[in-house]
Amino acid sequence: MYQQENFTIATSGRGTYDIDDRIARIVEDSGITTGLCHVFCHHTSASLILCENADPTVRRDLEAFMARLAPDGDPLFKHDAEGPDDMPAHVRTILTHSAITLPVTGGRLSLGTWQGLFLWEHRTGAHRRRITVTVHGE
Amino acid sequence: MYQQENFTIATSGRGTYDIDDRIARIVEDSGITTGLCHVFCHHTSASLILCENADPTVRRDLEAFMARLAPDGDPLFKHDAEGPDDMPAHVRTILTHSAITLPVTGGRLSLGTWQGLFLWEHRTGAHRRRITVTVHGE
Amino acid sequence: MYQQENFTIATSGRGTYDIDDRIARIVEDSGITTGLCHVFCHHTSASLILCENADPTVRRDLEAFMARLAPDGDPLFKHDAEGPDDMPAHVRTILTHSAITLPVTGGRLSLGTWQGLFLWEHRTGAHRRRITVTVHGE
Repeated sequence: MYQQENFTIATSGRGTYDIDDRIARIVEDSGITTGLCHVFCHHTSASLILCENADPTVRRDLEAFMARLAPDGDPLFKHDAEGPDDMPAHVRTILTHSAITLPVTGGRLSLGTWQGLFLWEHRTGAHRRRITVTVHGE
Repeated sequence: MYQQENFTIATSGRGTYDIDDRIARIVEDSGITTGLCHVFCHHTSASLILCENADPTVRRDLEAFMARLAPDGDPLFKHDAEGPDDMPAHVRTILTHSAITLPVTGGRLSLGTWQGLFLWEHRTGAHRRRITVTVHGE
Repeated sequence: MYQQENFTIATSGRGTYDIDDRIARIVEDSGITTGLCHVFCHHTSASLILCENADPTVRRDLEAFMARLAPDGDPLFKHDAEGPDDMPAHVRTILTHSAITLPVTGGRLSLGTWQGLFLWEHRTGAHRRRITVTVHGE
């Protein structure tokens, strides 16, 4: 059994957006008991992470880490057609995930206690980001 | 056909733990000939890597690389509730993988000659890490 | 329904190789309408990325980024059995992807407008790289 659906997230610029509840609901509505849930982000300047979900400082520190690793306006980068955050956004996407597959167990998304699924917007401006979720199993 | 099972690994602190044989056995016991094997780590300070499996120096060098990139006690990080290795462990997890999907061919895990699957414990102390394996195919 | 096939790519050394069309054709030939396509690279010094596909400067900048992060001949690395690019190639593989799963929708690979799938050869010399593609769905 394969259930596939799309949604979009309106981001207000760089930062992490919790999509756990939305994905969990799709899994529960699918009627699948045992299987997998594939989450896909159709963009090259936004990505997915499974991250500590309790202390927001963790995500603030991840931003600081990425800003040090690939700073906006880094003179190393030639590709800046859309601004100083253009190429850093591609680097951050490459280093994290466009696709994450999660286990479905007992009809539910089976994440660890501290794992949250986040869309990470890497551009400083607002964007609409498209996500496709495919749940499969039996 | 979907086969799902869990196991835990007791780590003795930071380092890589070979889980190849364990995963290979689950695949062989599943009775699935052609398909995929999804391996999932339910934690935010331990992760999975597919890495060169012959020379342990490769994994020593990976540790050195990560220690340079996100050192324990890095003043950049504010989140240190569990110690100086707390936030670096989250960074290492984000930059590697919580989930890896591997091909199943001819009833066996189909890795490259030099590919080994490792759990990478990023905390300096011992932990118990939970893994869920889902094999599916026909 | 599970369709699995292999192919090899002859690389001419470090750089990115577009494999979109090849994967798209396998998906279209599979007869699968809704499902997923798993792409797997059987090596530890070459990897897969989903990257901006319009401006080649993006991939040039990614090379520059990786060369700064893990330079060839970096004195941090002890593993250099195959030369100064040996360990940097493993690091680049770990930080990107050996496996990527893509949605199949309406009988086609469903990527974003700007997403291209590339094999990234990390060794400076020419190699043959083996890819396994598994399409599954209904």
